[in-house]
Order: sequence, then structure tokens, then C-alpha cells
Amino acid sequence: MKALLLVAHGSRRAQSNDEVRELTARMRERDAQFDIVECAFLELAEPSIPDGIESCIRQGAREVVVLPYFLSAGRHVVTDIPGEVAGKQQEHPGVKIEIAPYLGAAPQIADLLLGLAR
Amino acid sequence: MKALLLVAHGSRRAQSNDEVRELTARMRERDAQFDIVECAFLELAEPSIPDGIESCIRQGAREVVVLPYFLSAGRHVVTDIPGEVAGKQQEHPGVKIEIAPYLGAAPQIADLLLGLAR
Repeated sequence: MKALLLVAHGSRRAQSNDEVRELTARMRERDAQFDIVECAFLELAEPSIPDGIESCIRQGAREVVVLPYFLSAGRHVVTDIPGEVAGKQQEHPGVKIEIAPYLGAAPQIADLLLGLAR
Repeated sequence: MKALLLVAHGSRRAQSNDEVRELTARMRERDAQFDIVECAFLELAEPSIPDGIESCIRQGAREVVVLPYFLSAGRHVVTDIPGEVAGKQQEHPGVKIEIAPYLGAAPQIADLLLGLAR
């Protein structure tokens, strides 16, 4: 089984965290490749990244793709998320945990923004 | 003339601000509808939103579309950006300044993220 874990920063505003949960639900509906689609938060909201990965594994995932919902390659993307993932990878050497490119790195962003502006 | 102003939060990391400038350059290349495509920052980087709007108007824009490069409808999107825009609108009543939906509101985000994960 294959899991996708969307990782957002997390906010003090419950509404912002709910936006991420709704997006995750939309991805779950639209996807045919992942058996499990969940979200997790770096800070300020639950579940944490380790708890999110753990939940995927407990549901049977042998492969987890961690997808950073971030716009730039700052400290969170470069250091914090890989650090959290590395800890879980050590705990579960039999599970393949990978980090996908962060949202801001997607080449399609330019066209998507132009579409919003029109 | 019509201008598009991509508004990002701004970061202490010069590299993150440069990512926004590179994205803006990519949008400028790919777009055929706007005569001017610039970026501005809410804080921590230059130009500011008022300076960015002013620059578009000085280049001849009679219509400016402000596009928030933000993932959630937090205080910055709901209050701060509209506040900065309202101030400039008062100064330039003959220019039409509009705010487009913020990036996180784009329905295509779910598919874009799924594409990154595959």
C-alpha cells in the first residue's frame, strides 16, 4: 500500500488548517494512485509529521510520499521536514519514505497563477 | 495598459525572494495578456506593495491585477493586502486595481500536488 502525506506549515488559525484538510480530502477524491491520502503539520496543528507518517504505516502503507505544501525552499523544506522524515525512516527501515518536490518548485505554478489573474 | 502584480509575503532569506522574482520572470515570458508583470512583497523585501503598484502605474498601467502568492486566507490575504491596495486606489482613482483569488484558492492545486507526488 502506498500513502501520500501532504505536509503544511500549520497555523494558529484553525480555518487555515481546515483549508489544508479540505484540500487533502479533495486530493483523496481525485487520486487513483495512492491507497491513503492524509495531511500533517510541521507545527501549530495536529497531527505532527511523525504522527502522520505513523498513521499511514499503521493503515498498512509500505511506501509513504511526503509532499511539502510550501512555496519556497526555506529552512522548513530544506532542514526541518527532512529531519522529521529521517527519524521515522530509522524507526521503520522496511518502509520506503520519500520526499516529493515542494509545491513552489512545480513548473506549472506560473500558468496556474496566470489563470487566476485572468 | 494592464499590469499583473504578484504579491508574496517576503522572507529574510534572499533566496526565497529570488524564487518569487524568477517565478515572476517566468510568468512574464509565458503571458500574452498583461503588458506589465511585476512582483512585490508584503514585508521583509522590496518593492513593497504600494511601490509595486506605483511602478506599474508609472509604466502606464490603467488596470492593475494584484495576485496574492499565498496558500491560505489568513490575515495577510484578508486584511493586509486589501488595506495596502485600498490606500493606492484612493491615490489613483482613475486606475482600476483589483485583487485576484490567492493561490491556495485555485481549484487546480489538488491536481498539481498529485502530479508532484507521482
